[in-house]
Amino acid sequence: MSFITFGEIMLRLTPEKHKMKINSCKSFNVDYAGSESNVASSLGVLGNDVAFVTKLPENQLGDAAISSLRWYGINTNAIVRGGNRIGTYFIEQGTSIRPSKVIYDRKNSSLSEIKDNEFNWEEILKNRTWIFLSGITPVLSSQCAKETIKVAEIARKMGVKVAFDMNYRRSLWKQPSDARIIFDKIFNNTNLLFGNANVLKDVYNISPEGDNKHDQTLNAMETASQKFGIDKIAFTIRDHVSASHNKLSGVFLSESKYYTSNTIEVSIADRFGTGDAFAAGLLHGVNKEWNDQKAVDFATAAFALKHTVLGDQHTSSEEEIFSIMEGNISGHVLR
Amino acid sequence: MSFITFGEIMLRLTPEKHKMKINSCKSFNVDYAGSESNVASSLGVLGNDVAFVTKLPENQLGDAAISSLRWYGINTNAIVRGGNRIGTYFIEQGTSIRPSKVIYDRKNSSLSEIKDNEFNWEEILKNRTWIFLSGITPVLSSQCAKETIKVAEIARKMGVKVAFDMNYRRSLWKQPSDARIIFDKIFNNTNLLFGNANVLKDVYNISPEGDNKHDQTLNAMETASQKFGIDKIAFTIRDHVSASHNKLSGVFLSESKYYTSNTIEVSIADRFGTGDAFAAGLLHGVNKEWNDQKAVDFATAAFALKHTVLGDQHTSSEEEIFSIMEGNISGHVLR
Amino acid sequence: MSFITFGEIMLRLTPEKHKMKINSCKSFNVDYAGSESNVASSLGVLGNDVAFVTKLPENQLGDAAISSLRWYGINTNAIVRGGNRIGTYFIEQGTSIRPSKVIYDRKNSSLSEIKDNEFNWEEILKNRTWIFLSGITPVLSSQCAKETIKVAEIARKMGVKVAFDMNYRRSLWKQPSDARIIFDKIFNNTNLLFGNANVLKDVYNISPEGDNKHDQTLNAMETASQKFGIDKIAFTIRDHVSASHNKLSGVFLSESKYYTSNTIEVSIADRFGTGDAFAAGLLHGVNKEWNDQKAVDFATAAFALKHTVLGDQHTSSEEEIFSIMEGNISGHVLR
Amino acid sequence: MSFITFGEIMLRLTPEKHKMKINSCKSFNVDYAGSESNVASSLGVLGNDVAFVTKLPENQLGDAAISSLRWYGINTNAIVRGGNRIGTYFIEQGTSIRPSKVIYDRKNSSLSEIKDNEFNWEEILKNRTWIFLSGITPVLSSQCAKETIKVAEIARKMGVKVAFDMNYRRSLWKQPSDARIIFDKIFNNTNLLFGNANVLKDVYNISPEGDNKHDQTLNAMETASQKFGIDKIAFTIRDHVSASHNKLSGVFLSESKYYTSNTIEVSIADRFGTGDAFAAGLLHGVNKEWNDQKAVDFATAAFALKHTVLGDQHTSSEEEIFSIMEGNISGHVLR
Amino acid sequence: MSFITFGEIMLRLTPEKHKMKINSCKSFNVDYAGSESNVASSLGVLGNDVAFVTKLPENQLGDAAISSLRWYGINTNAIVRGGNRIGTYFIEQGTSIRPSKVIYDRKNSSLSEIKDNEFNWEEILKNRTWIFLSGITPVLSSQCAKETIKVAEIARKMGVKVAFDMNYRRSLWKQPSDARIIFDKIFNNTNLLFGNANVLKDVYNISPEGDNKHDQTLNAMETASQKFGIDKIAFTIRDHVSASHNKLSGVFLSESKYYTSNTIEVSIADRFGTGDAFAAGLLHGVNKEWNDQKAVDFATAAFALKHTVLGDQHTSSEEEIFSIMEGNISGHVLR
Amino acid sequence: MSFITFGEIMLRLTPEKHKMKINSCKSFNVDYAGSESNVASSLGVLGNDVAFVTKLPENQLGDAAISSLRWYGINTNAIVRGGNRIGTYFIEQGTSIRPSKVIYDRKNSSLSEIKDNEFNWEEILKNRTWIFLSGITPVLSSQCAKETIKVAEIARKMGVKVAFDMNYRRSLWKQPSDARIIFDKIFNNTNLLFGNANVLKDVYNISPEGDNKHDQTLNAMETASQKFGIDKIAFTIRDHVSASHNKLSGVFLSESKYYTSNTIEVSIADRFGTGDAFAAGLLHGVNKEWNDQKAVDFATAAFALKHTVLGDQHTSSEEEIFSIMEGNISGHVLR
Ligand SMILES: [Ca+2]
Ligand SMILES: [Ca+2]
Ligand SMILES: [Ca+2]
Ligand SMILES: [Ca+2]
Ligand SMILES: [Ca+2]
Ligand SMILES: [Ca+2]
Ligand SMILES: [Ca+2]
Ligand SMILES: [Ca+2]
Ligand SMILES: [Ca+2]
Ligand SMILES: [Ca+2]
Ligand SMILES: [Ca+2]
Ligand SMILES: [Ca+2]
Ligand code: NI
Ligand code: NI
Ligand code: NI
Ligand code: NI
Ligand code: NI
Ligand code: NI
Ligand code: NI
Ligand code: NI
Ligand code: NI
Ligand code: NI
Ligand code: NI
Ligand code: NI
Ligand code: NI
Ligand code: NI
Ligand code: NI
Ligand code: NI
Ligand code: NI
Ligand code: NI
Repeated sequence: MSFITFGEIMLRLTPEKHKMKINSCKSFNVDYAGSESNVASSLGVLGNDVAFVTKLPENQLGDAAISSLRWYGINTNAIVRGGNRIGTYFIEQGTSIRPSKVIYDRKNSSLSEIKDNEFNWEEILKNRTWIFLSGITPVLSSQCAKETIKVAEIARKMGVKVAFDMNYRRSLWKQPSDARIIFDKIFNNTNLLFGNANVLKDVYNISPEGDNKHDQTLNAMETASQKFGIDKIAFTIRDHVSASHNKLSGVFLSESKYYTSNTIEVSIADRFGTGDAFAAGLLHGVNKEWNDQKAVDFATAAFALKHTVLGDQHTSSEEEIFSIMEGNISGHVLR
Repeated sequence: MSFITFGEIMLRLTPEKHKMKINSCKSFNVDYAGSESNVASSLGVLGNDVAFVTKLPENQLGDAAISSLRWYGINTNAIVRGGNRIGTYFIEQGTSIRPSKVIYDRKNSSLSEIKDNEFNWEEILKNRTWIFLSGITPVLSSQCAKETIKVAEIARKMGVKVAFDMNYRRSLWKQPSDARIIFDKIFNNTNLLFGNANVLKDVYNISPEGDNKHDQTLNAMETASQKFGIDKIAFTIRDHVSASHNKLSGVFLSESKYYTSNTIEVSIADRFGTGDAFAAGLLHGVNKEWNDQKAVDFATAAFALKHTVLGDQHTSSEEEIFSIMEGNISGHVLR
Repeated sequence: MSFITFGEIMLRLTPEKHKMKINSCKSFNVDYAGSESNVASSLGVLGNDVAFVTKLPENQLGDAAISSLRWYGINTNAIVRGGNRIGTYFIEQGTSIRPSKVIYDRKNSSLSEIKDNEFNWEEILKNRTWIFLSGITPVLSSQCAKETIKVAEIARKMGVKVAFDMNYRRSLWKQPSDARIIFDKIFNNTNLLFGNANVLKDVYNISPEGDNKHDQTLNAMETASQKFGIDKIAFTIRDHVSASHNKLSGVFLSESKYYTSNTIEVSIADRFGTGDAFAAGLLHGVNKEWNDQKAVDFATAAFALKHTVLGDQHTSSEEEIFSIMEGNISGHVLR
Repeated sequence: MSFITFGEIMLRLTPEKHKMKINSCKSFNVDYAGSESNVASSLGVLGNDVAFVTKLPENQLGDAAISSLRWYGINTNAIVRGGNRIGTYFIEQGTSIRPSKVIYDRKNSSLSEIKDNEFNWEEILKNRTWIFLSGITPVLSSQCAKETIKVAEIARKMGVKVAFDMNYRRSLWKQPSDARIIFDKIFNNTNLLFGNANVLKDVYNISPEGDNKHDQTLNAMETASQKFGIDKIAFTIRDHVSASHNKLSGVFLSESKYYTSNTIEVSIADRFGTGDAFAAGLLHGVNKEWNDQKAVDFATAAFALKHTVLGDQHTSSEEEIFSIMEGNISGHVLR
Repeated sequence: MSFITFGEIMLRLTPEKHKMKINSCKSFNVDYAGSESNVASSLGVLGNDVAFVTKLPENQLGDAAISSLRWYGINTNAIVRGGNRIGTYFIEQGTSIRPSKVIYDRKNSSLSEIKDNEFNWEEILKNRTWIFLSGITPVLSSQCAKETIKVAEIARKMGVKVAFDMNYRRSLWKQPSDARIIFDKIFNNTNLLFGNANVLKDVYNISPEGDNKHDQTLNAMETASQKFGIDKIAFTIRDHVSASHNKLSGVFLSESKYYTSNTIEVSIADRFGTGDAFAAGLLHGVNKEWNDQKAVDFATAAFALKHTVLGDQHTSSEEEIFSIMEGNISGHVLR
Repeated sequence: MSFITFGEIMLRLTPEKHKMKINSCKSFNVDYAGSESNVASSLGVLGNDVAFVTKLPENQLGDAAISSLRWYGINTNAIVRGGNRIGTYFIEQGTSIRPSKVIYDRKNSSLSEIKDNEFNWEEILKNRTWIFLSGITPVLSSQCAKETIKVAEIARKMGVKVAFDMNYRRSLWKQPSDARIIFDKIFNNTNLLFGNANVLKDVYNISPEGDNKHDQTLNAMETASQKFGIDKIAFTIRDHVSASHNKLSGVFLSESKYYTSNTIEVSIADRFGTGDAFAAGLLHGVNKEWNDQKAVDFATAAFALKHTVLGDQHTSSEEEIFSIMEGNISGHVLR
């Protein structure tokens, strides 16, 4: 019973002094992250057997990225080395009304320039239970798109379940229809879909009815389930109390029933990787064969808790997430 | 007119980058702290003559701990040197719904392994007005428990007043009854008791009636006063607006009357040492013979202000605390 | 079409670990700032041709201050070198109810000790459109007061428009009447006045009527316009939701009409330099000949956004400020 | 073909500002290290299959120590969790004539308090080629001594070769004879012995003749080989040009022949872990079946190069060590 | 009388903790540098009128690179904005025998992807005295090679003198003959050539005779002067006392005479940018019309002094370099 | 048996990243130091009863300076509070041939502006054995000169011995004769004089004969002893192996005999405060009534060891200095 995630891990550079902008900063904190590796690190910290697949250059930065994955207990044996460079991104952490900003410098990265047949998927997927894919990988290059579609097909054939997070980034796609064409092919082999109502609107122009975000989200999930023929879907909901305070919840559609978590209000320290924490939390619960309500409650607690941890990685333990799930959200000191 | 506090000062290690967890941190900030030394440092910063008594190992860490006490103007002459190690604790600073966490590594510390008669209390207490003790010291070892009970008795005999903060830490005691047996002996010589309604519930299973925290706290204090025969009691009250925002107040029972402070709402930067700041504030006021209302108002202003200062120590001056007490709580810049 | 600002740039030292007090800090962040240079740096970042005029000592600190101005694209050719020292100030960043504190150590600075005729104003002001002055410079020394009054006169004669921010600092002036005498002389040549209702109360004892801060501010502006004979006035309004959360707006009186911006609620990271960001924003808009409503909306968006950036400088681009102005204030990540 | 190392990994705390002493430091860098894990990390970085065996507490510090091992590609599956605390040490980095200092706080660590049969050695050693042990582990507790002797016996029986580094620490042993009794038992199953002439003098009072360090070292190795019946021995030699500059070499006795490396002069940045780098380098070469001269040349190049890297870990790649071995020691920039 | 330099300025990332390797580092210091901008910054710090020409992306990193140039007083008006990314490089600072390492990630940088006619050279070169070019720019792309050759031709026609530093980087060129073809074209318009004997050997396979580095360097310069028809040539000489200590000198061929500086021994803190400091020093002297001996003495003092300053930039003032030149090299404190 | 030192303690600011220059630095390390407080801190760390006398402003910087003194165990009760500012200095740490630089910004400091009779010397000197004064204090203001002369006289009358370190700073005195006039008055009451041959040359134009620095120093001491009538003199000797490596020794003239220490070669990390470490070491030995040879050996070991510790303060313990004195100067790790 184990997980694979596939995608790009990048060098992440963030101004050392928080609340400082890139245009006046003199020191960057260094991390290695990306949506798919974030899901892997979260699964690793939760104690799962998990491997990450990517391609990285044969230099010290590639070495360090691999070391960082190992730190979280991720198996890195299937990572291919070569190519020209590690994809890089710069983060300017926002606060209150000031948005966080991302500068991507990921073109010509080793993963984006893969050729056919660099990964031996039959070997990699052997004895795996789940593979996690995201909608970011296909936008990197046409070969990356083909590879993502291909690995989903192979997985389905081998009996490995496919989880797919749409993770639609407007700035990376030329137009929504480009994403639609690829997503539709992946949906054919998707067992579990992650996303939120905004993404459905952006990519498929689905504007669900409903008086509030919760009702709109359920309607969006219903539409998606029918349109894409996927019967397990998990969506997050975010309500804005203010720019620094959000109310968060999650909904899980499973075997035609909707399971909604409690709503948790957080003061936001870091929005990055919160969706990845939700996906990892749900996969963890589903893999442990928890009942659906427990799975979405756990995923939502992980989603909320990640907002309080700096960085892409969610390093909270299962015990810590359970505690939030049980309502210990007043922030008292634990001794 | 001067103070003594007695207890364990520990090496305090905290991830340098705030909002980072211990399991991924690469640098710790260094401080030396503990409930009783925090009370001492606060009293020192407020300009009082104060000494701290403990036992520390004969190495550079023991040297640094002593130097840190001197920084705040604390007399360290009565500190005994020897033993094997300095007690250590690691703090993971929480934020919003994420709780702060403490890993204690304090076993076999120099203080916990004291033998009989290492401290010459008659000498140490000479010409002192108050000694501050806490419920943490007795749990360190049976000799530490004996020493705490003994020093309270000697103090009473020498006319030195005893202030005692129950500071009950669930994780350190095997069972509440262990604490009860020791606390009851200390109460016999206690002039001034610090705590809150939760502690009374935890240790003595006292669940006071009342529609709100304020009423419950008054009832708890009334019960404690009668049950323990202590006529000066000061309790803190904490109401949760949210995980990051608390409303704080204090109540002082003195000569059978209850004095309640205003309520101050704070956005929390650091919960550690806030109770110690309250105790130091009240002792400062009582020692200055302020009227009881002023004493509890000052203590509560100190309690609230400490929530905005990182670290265990409360380094605000009397003037700064007065300003909060006078209602200057809008955070405008002082030039 | 270009700007000049004139005043003192100081060495700004701030404890490196935020939320740490000066009395226990071991490392200071270094910056160079001051109200007038903050206006210049903001104008520079917004892409304007701007120069800053001051006097700085002939040592590495003076060199670094000049380099820091150049960083923001400010022309430093008119800066005079000489004198004894750079003015210095220490900032203790507050949070929640704890106020920020400033220790000024600016006596005997190079600017404060200028003699007559050190600046060749006719040369400096040639081909400039606006000069920005503030009420801080005249308090530095009697020669600085004379110089400020003189440069305003020369500017008026040369057709360079004068913007003046009262920036009244209670701790620097002996008594309000000292400021009044000087301000009145500057008003004679002022085209655009910056301030807020509190300053008018402090300096001129003007207590405007009104049920709320907005109405009081309009009335204060009306009084000021008539009393001082200035027809362009821009004031900021600050309402306190709590110590950490303020509601901010701006009002611009221009050609006898009042233009009020939307109100923006922020969680405060740094109050320093926010008024300077407002002034720079308004000057930028006026200089671009935007309509008055757009100018005040832009200035208020800059004012609000600056509250989320650490440090005196406001380094947001025009595009970033426009985005806030257009209502993108939920803090979503921009990729 | 793979390695096991067994011993204690500790929390290593070092003043952040280099050349600062512990008694005035305010921030510690965090690492996890120990002689046996250093050998493992070096083998891991060199691309070997290597596992580390120890016992660590079930808390975030234990988690972080394990994560740090994984960073270097070390298999951590055989690590037992439990016990009370992680052993800790504090390092004061010396420079020039000032010696580095170590404060050990490792009593009652999880490894030192192991009971019988916590490790399933037959399982752990299966399919391994080499196990590396050191003379530090037996001094931790009598069970640790028994465990070290036992694992050497089991290894020998299973055909796993035993490498043993005497690593005699005067401050940890009560008297040399305590070490002798244990070392003699380990020697019975030792295939490859690491050390230097000083250690033989300290533990066995062997004072070899010779005009220089090189000759003395060869004579010491000859004596050791005959006395202990070990036919593979590798010793380091250190000559002092000055306190900051040492001349380094290595000698390998194999099949009755002595292979001496070149001498490399280094300016010393960090002496810690240099012996461990030598041991890892030699094991790497022997395991790759390089000829003996190449093995000792590689080990010595690794030994020398480690003096220029801060921290316990030697993270140089095989290619980097080869380059030093080939005489590229002028420090030119590699682009 | 003023300077232009043209080339690529890159984002330079260096592990924050010195003597730490990239594969285990968690924080990078941020700077913006490159051979040609280093020459510009040094000329700027020395008080010259200097402009830098390049192309940078329209994002915060491009903004920050420009700001960093302004910090040193460099005119940035001719910098073109656009393209995809800023070239990036990672530095691992060596020490003693450990070499510094550079990872270049500069492909597809904005400058490397320039098209024809992006720079208006006639405008840019107007009223300039010198343009500095280097052998790095032509290797970036074929258009960059064309642009470098072209600007040298235009300069010659406009009467702007051309200084050219061969700066041959083996790892960037496919084969020496590629460089030769381009260099030969630039030599046609070169007034002043920078380099050293090693570069002549690498590119032109010129192995000068001579018993020592000094004689070999003079012979190499003689050959170069005749072969390339350049009559002003300045070469550096580096002799290795040890890996950390070098003896440095410079030779200037001018009007058929050779001027050799004194030899200065340094302990090396940072080799980067030392050649650039030499070039800037010589250009500064030549531009000031110092006699040739003084020019080479100044350049060599700058060359030596740069070895003691961390980072690419040489920020020493003229006065500081004069002091070294006058023999104040014992390192006494200047108060 | 105890010590007093009197002088100015200043805010000391140093670029955080070592080997960085002030003109490009963004963060300063904070310390509080000065020659006389350095002697006090060293005496405190060595376990002596020591007090420091100065005047400091009534603000957080004054508070922090006092706290820093307490850290080292210095009694601060006699410090007067008031005046305008704390003297400040900026240090640019040199390395190899690059000199360290100091920017003083100490004018108008609280101590420099003292009036008559601010210190109650009879009270302060009661029961003290030694007072340490330096030649820096008299140059601060004419009242500071008077105060230094006066305190020496009072001390002599009260039987408190006077130690005086000439500490002549060329940049602070207008001309040597100004110093001579004051020094001569202090010499009348001096029991022990510190200095070196260079200072005698600078102030009194005494150029002693001798073939080497050692002989010249003895001759200089002989002249000084006769000319000033002081019979205890201790001088340091510094020989330059290179800019980074010095050979250090000390000479003590006592009861007409000269005691010369061994010579110790060091690689220099920080020259600041080394003379102060020598003075403190000698005073410590004299006060302990060690024989004269032991006293100068200890002082020289302290002098040499301080060169390896960053910062003004010498925080080595007596045991650490003894170890250097006993010849343990190879820099081996102490465990
Ligand atoms: Ca590799
Ligand atoms: Ca994400
Ligand atoms: Ca506490
Ligand atoms: Ca200058
Ligand atoms: Ca301002
Ligand atoms: Ca765990
Ligand atoms: Ca070791
Ligand atoms: Ca831009
Ligand atoms: Ca270069
Ligand atoms: Ca730092
Ligand atoms: Ca005070
Ligand atoms: Ca000194
Ligand atoms: Ni921070
Ligand atoms: Ni939203
Ligand atoms: Ni809020
Ligand atoms: Ni923060
Ligand atoms: Ni609560
Ligand atoms: Ni809030
Ligand atoms: Ni207000
Ligand atoms: Ni709030
Ligand atoms: Ni040795
Ligand atoms: Ni070793
Ligand atoms: Ni450093
Ligand atoms: Ni070379
Ligand atoms: Ni050397
Ligand atoms: Ni070079
Ligand atoms: Ni260093
Ligand atoms: Ni000298
Ligand atoms: Ni050296
Ligand atoms: Ni000195």
